[in-house]
Amino acid sequence: MEVVASILAGDVPTAARLMRDLDDRRPDAIAIVKQLYAHTGKAYVVGVTGNPGAGKSSLVDALIAHYRAAGETVGVIAIDPSSPFSGGALLGDRVRMHRHSLDPGVFIRSLATRGHLGGLSRSTFDIAHVFDAMGFQKIVIETVGVGQDEVDVMAAAHTTVVVSVPGLGDEIQAIKAGLLEIADVLVVNKSDREGADRTVRELRHMLGLRVAHDHEVAVVSTVATRGTGVAELAAAIEAHRATAWSGPGAATRATARARAHLEGLVRAMLAERASRVLAAHVTDPAVDVAARRKDPWSIAEELVALSGTL
Amino acid sequence: MEVVASILAGDVPTAARLMRDLDDRRPDAIAIVKQLYAHTGKAYVVGVTGNPGAGKSSLVDALIAHYRAAGETVGVIAIDPSSPFSGGALLGDRVRMHRHSLDPGVFIRSLATRGHLGGLSRSTFDIAHVFDAMGFQKIVIETVGVGQDEVDVMAAAHTTVVVSVPGLGDEIQAIKAGLLEIADVLVVNKSDREGADRTVRELRHMLGLRVAHDHEVAVVSTVATRGTGVAELAAAIEAHRATAWSGPGAATRATARARAHLEGLVRAMLAERASRVLAAHVTDPAVDVAARRKDPWSIAEELVALSGTL
Repeated sequence: MEVVASILAGDVPTAARLMRDLDDRRPDAIAIVKQLYAHTGKAYVVGVTGNPGAGKSSLVDALIAHYRAAGETVGVIAIDPSSPFSGGALLGDRVRMHRHSLDPGVFIRSLATRGHLGGLSRSTFDIAHVFDAMGFQKIVIETVGVGQDEVDVMAAAHTTVVVSVPGLGDEIQAIKAGLLEIADVLVVNKSDREGADRTVRELRHMLGLRVAHDHEVAVVSTVATRGTGVAELAAAIEAHRATAWSGPGAATRATARARAHLEGLVRAMLAERASRVLAAHVTDPAVDVAARRKDPWSIAEELVALSGTL
Repeated sequence: MEVVASILAGDVPTAARLMRDLDDRRPDAIAIVKQLYAHTGKAYVVGVTGNPGAGKSSLVDALIAHYRAAGETVGVIAIDPSSPFSGGALLGDRVRMHRHSLDPGVFIRSLATRGHLGGLSRSTFDIAHVFDAMGFQKIVIETVGVGQDEVDVMAAAHTTVVVSVPGLGDEIQAIKAGLLEIADVLVVNKSDREGADRTVRELRHMLGLRVAHDHEVAVVSTVATRGTGVAELAAAIEAHRATAWSGPGAATRATARARAHLEGLVRAMLAERASRVLAAHVTDPAVDVAARRKDPWSIAEELVALSGTL
């Protein structure tokens, strides 16, 4: 098939169209990605997450530059609504430019965080597989790590990098504790700021408190805007790859990663079915619920029972 | 039924058990909440959201004190992982205490943000209905507003309060733009800080840029830790209630709110079905996907087709 051959040859316009069609759940797009799947499994996926203000975008920018300097091609999936990679234009008409937009070795695809109804993880996997089939060697996923959606997204990454900064308030640090559980590599960015050493010590202390961990988590200090520490970060990612994705544990991890994609797909398909079920009703069941003529639990059960027949 | 009568009489231990059982999706708990539903519709639900560091917890604390001083009972649903109301003990063993924990007129129920797989909105509605049946007059939902999950949760609120602070970085401000769309009342907290006036002006400017809005959004300045501006906030919430939840628009809003709960319930039930479908397989389909013997899209389709029969 011509489209499959174009994607495997790395054709960007064809891939961009395919990704759009995949997001619209078009059957022809899904038929194509099924054929592409056998050609995937070569790319290495790095997830970068952390709280707003941690400088994730600068770090991703520096990491892309590092991989490009090493001759590797990079696909970027930007889910962070504040990231310049995803447009970052939420503050009106201000569009921040970045240096990789004209590099044919870098392909940036942004994903909206809103209106996805939990389908973000599914979309991320789908896009990562297309990048992979195109021959991109590294795939970088950037997301803001606070909600469950964003944590789910990191299931698509082989190595998850959690970015922190010195001197954030307690409230933000507390949220970061949730991120610690999914971190394979920790970064203290803006490490030229006061308190950086203390932040590194605190993170090492928190890492020591974890009950179970199957591998050591490296803590890397960076100043992304100056490129400081970026080579060390890339080395830490490689070190995680070498221990986590080889040997007996690799198969288990690969299965868990495949399962996360499967669950995302099944959930998205069932959610579509739920929307169809609600839409297929001649009378709006929500009107009865709002008027308290019927209770929402009984109606939901009726709708789900009906959904098997749609 | 005895449990129903206990809940309607406001018995806290019975309600706490019911909420736990509802979260476990126990059929007996769902049978009870169905009977309670006809007794709901009296409580007023206020949602408080905003970025980490905005001082939401102090504001919720001050709002509870305000309602209590007016003789009203308050149910609190805390979803913010950094909130003292939800335990806020992510940073090790530090447990922050708060002044309402011994007040029988305040019932605090915290919800974990992780592992909910989009069921957060459903849980919030379920708990709000139990609080409502118990006779609580005000229900306050506190959540960190960044991900889609958190935005979905606000569908359970009659009035949504979005909290901001002066002088946050650009990155955080950008995320806030997404929250602006769901705000009924805007708060600039910590308004004794430098730049507060500018933040108020910026927010007013951003509000002016909205394409469609069915009501005016008040901007209230507060210093929650000192109680400053809290009466004004409560008045702004009441003003929103008076315009939005009376007159011809009220029925439409009530239906939309009921629909959000229904969708959450249907989605949660279908997600459970998806888990059952995956678990019912003798061989783990994810193993075949990881080995690239089968593609995930085909397997997901097979599983969804099977799900109608389970």
